[in-house]
Amino acid sequence: MIMSIPQRILIAPSGFKGSLDADVVADAIAAGIRRVIPGVNTVVLPIPDGGEGTAKLLASSTGGTLVSLGVTGPVGERVNSHYALLGGSQRGIAVVEMAAAAGLSLVPKDMRNPGATTTYGVGETIAAALSNPEVHTILVGCGDSGTSDGGAGALSALGAKILDADEQEVQLGGANLSNAERIDYSGLHPRLSQVRIILALNQHNILTGPKGVARVFGPQKGATPQQVEELDQALTHWANLLESTQNEMTGGRVSTDFHTGAGTGASGGLGAGLALIGAELTPRFEALIDSGLAGLSVTTEIQQADLVVTAEGAIDYQTPKGKVPAEIAARAQAAGVPVLALAGSIGEKAYRVHDAGIDAFASIMPLPMGLDDALENGEELLTNSTERCFRMILLGASLSASMQNRNLKAAA
Amino acid sequence: MIMSIPQRILIAPSGFKGSLDADVVADAIAAGIRRVIPGVNTVVLPIPDGGEGTAKLLASSTGGTLVSLGVTGPVGERVNSHYALLGGSQRGIAVVEMAAAAGLSLVPKDMRNPGATTTYGVGETIAAALSNPEVHTILVGCGDSGTSDGGAGALSALGAKILDADEQEVQLGGANLSNAERIDYSGLHPRLSQVRIILALNQHNILTGPKGVARVFGPQKGATPQQVEELDQALTHWANLLESTQNEMTGGRVSTDFHTGAGTGASGGLGAGLALIGAELTPRFEALIDSGLAGLSVTTEIQQADLVVTAEGAIDYQTPKGKVPAEIAARAQAAGVPVLALAGSIGEKAYRVHDAGIDAFASIMPLPMGLDDALENGEELLTNSTERCFRMILLGASLSASMQNRNLKAAA
Repeated sequence: MIMSIPQRILIAPSGFKGSLDADVVADAIAAGIRRVIPGVNTVVLPIPDGGEGTAKLLASSTGGTLVSLGVTGPVGERVNSHYALLGGSQRGIAVVEMAAAAGLSLVPKDMRNPGATTTYGVGETIAAALSNPEVHTILVGCGDSGTSDGGAGALSALGAKILDADEQEVQLGGANLSNAERIDYSGLHPRLSQVRIILALNQHNILTGPKGVARVFGPQKGATPQQVEELDQALTHWANLLESTQNEMTGGRVSTDFHTGAGTGASGGLGAGLALIGAELTPRFEALIDSGLAGLSVTTEIQQADLVVTAEGAIDYQTPKGKVPAEIAARAQAAGVPVLALAGSIGEKAYRVHDAGIDAFASIMPLPMGLDDALENGEELLTNSTERCFRMILLGASLSASMQNRNLKAAA
Repeated sequence: MIMSIPQRILIAPSGFKGSLDADVVADAIAAGIRRVIPGVNTVVLPIPDGGEGTAKLLASSTGGTLVSLGVTGPVGERVNSHYALLGGSQRGIAVVEMAAAAGLSLVPKDMRNPGATTTYGVGETIAAALSNPEVHTILVGCGDSGTSDGGAGALSALGAKILDADEQEVQLGGANLSNAERIDYSGLHPRLSQVRIILALNQHNILTGPKGVARVFGPQKGATPQQVEELDQALTHWANLLESTQNEMTGGRVSTDFHTGAGTGASGGLGAGLALIGAELTPRFEALIDSGLAGLSVTTEIQQADLVVTAEGAIDYQTPKGKVPAEIAARAQAAGVPVLALAGSIGEKAYRVHDAGIDAFASIMPLPMGLDDALENGEELLTNSTERCFRMILLGASLSASMQNRNLKAAA
């Protein structure tokens, strides 16, 4: 009996936020594996999470292009946004990353009032993709948002008019939605009826009430307690208006729960706003991985692999709640393929990830060092720690084989 | 084919200098292993390195006692020294740790002049052990020394008189040895002829010349370039005196190379000084492990183990040069048993340890953190990282077994 060494390894990591893009993470892991198993077949499949970097990653992984455009940013200034036109077999699919037009990192720290920021630029980006006649499907990644306007800005940019009692357009920003009395949808972008829009989102985010976006995310987006209450009231008013408008638009055939429907609160209510125009609110990894839209053949690749390696900046008690390593692990577990996870930081109650299908995990840290040093040397740390992990895995394989030989001899 | 899990694991770590004693390290590792393999048989065998903590560790591991005594410290003040009387089958063996009487940590930073410090307290400690009529063997651990007196102080405390041209006793400290003209050995401790003295030392340390203790260790022990030269000259003079004295004492039957003989420079020349009175200069792990004197049945335990786990504060390019993990690994490699090593810090060129028989190694660090935090939480970090390592080892074992099953099915 000689030990068996993994022949084909799927590398499906997330990026390390603020440090390494997912494709860089994947390559660094592959380099570490090859140091230990030189002839191994590694398949790199960096996984986007719908937030920052999603469009760029998918443009690159499908051989598509990234289209840049200037839009209105979350606090009203001009920002450079972009969307991806996927390539290869995914041609005709555009990927809009909401964070590229209205992400939290675009909101200056001293302007973090979630009642004032807008998704107008997200609508402009979607409109740009709609105007490409080849595009038949738009995947909108919701994540890392800096807004809480119920998607009102995006609707406006797509041609809706949100009017007050005097038939004047309501100003941008969620706090102003308490003045909205009517949505004039007659000017909506004509291609909206021809193009499928799918939001990749966290379905646990809902728009209003005790678990609504104002109360859950308002404080971390910079709202005072009073602003939180006012924003929740404005969004509740907005949800009612969306409901009556949908009823009018569809003649009552479609009835969405805009208050607490799954995903309505995603990206500060972008889910609710775009649901009005027929966007599909889909759990993010169902949209990004299982739908096949993004060209990520995760399930097929898992089935062909002996081992899956995933990674994220941190592994902790939040990982099982829908982070990339847990999502990859769930799919690997279903296929009976073991999973190793690497992280820059092993945090509180990380052991919970074992229940989520991660067989083993490791930190990339080799010695006591500060965060800045770790961020600066991330790639090298990752390659070195991958090497260490694989030497340990081979130690286990070799140990098992030699113990079996001993047992066979003892039995003979 | 189901995977084989290690049934019996030998845990043979060093201490983590300045943080965790070797027995604490061993227990923390055992706790981590049991989290992953609850029914495993762990054998803990903490390994001393001859330096600080050696006597205490061996007193404890053999069920012996630690004897305390006041002696003259390296800079002339009184310090509390100690030696071990081993228990069980090792009764009659005493362990003297030179660092307990003349270690570098006993030399205040502002008094670090290697020409002035003395091993007098080491001699007092040996004399105390000699005076115990049950003691037939004294093992002297050389390591972590703060002296460079060629063992002159120790010889004096054991009854030799080191005299100058005026037949006056030369003052303590290596720099004064240039005045030594004669050694009067008539008053040596009477039990020296009955008791075997074995120095556990680094045989690469020699007394004089370009690779002698003054030039190699002088600067790090606080000597100026001029002091280094003067000290080397004094030690060269001393080596000549030791040579002529040995010739006289033994009638020419024994002839030691006191200048560059293996281990003569150990502990600042304590090796050379004690060689005059017949002490055996032995590579430290040969003395501490292979001789059986210290009661550490390393070789036997390795042969009975499926896996060996070792550890040290740091693993780097110096590890293969006679550090505990490499010494344990060499013995495990000879027995065909795989080795895992854990370390607080993975340093430069650590990969060199693979050639020394360490199959896999890991750092205990879970995330970016400062040294103080790491030292404060060493035990917990060690247990947690051991758990992570063993999950990875079992992942490898399981992977190998399931791949073999697949191959068997494919072949059937």
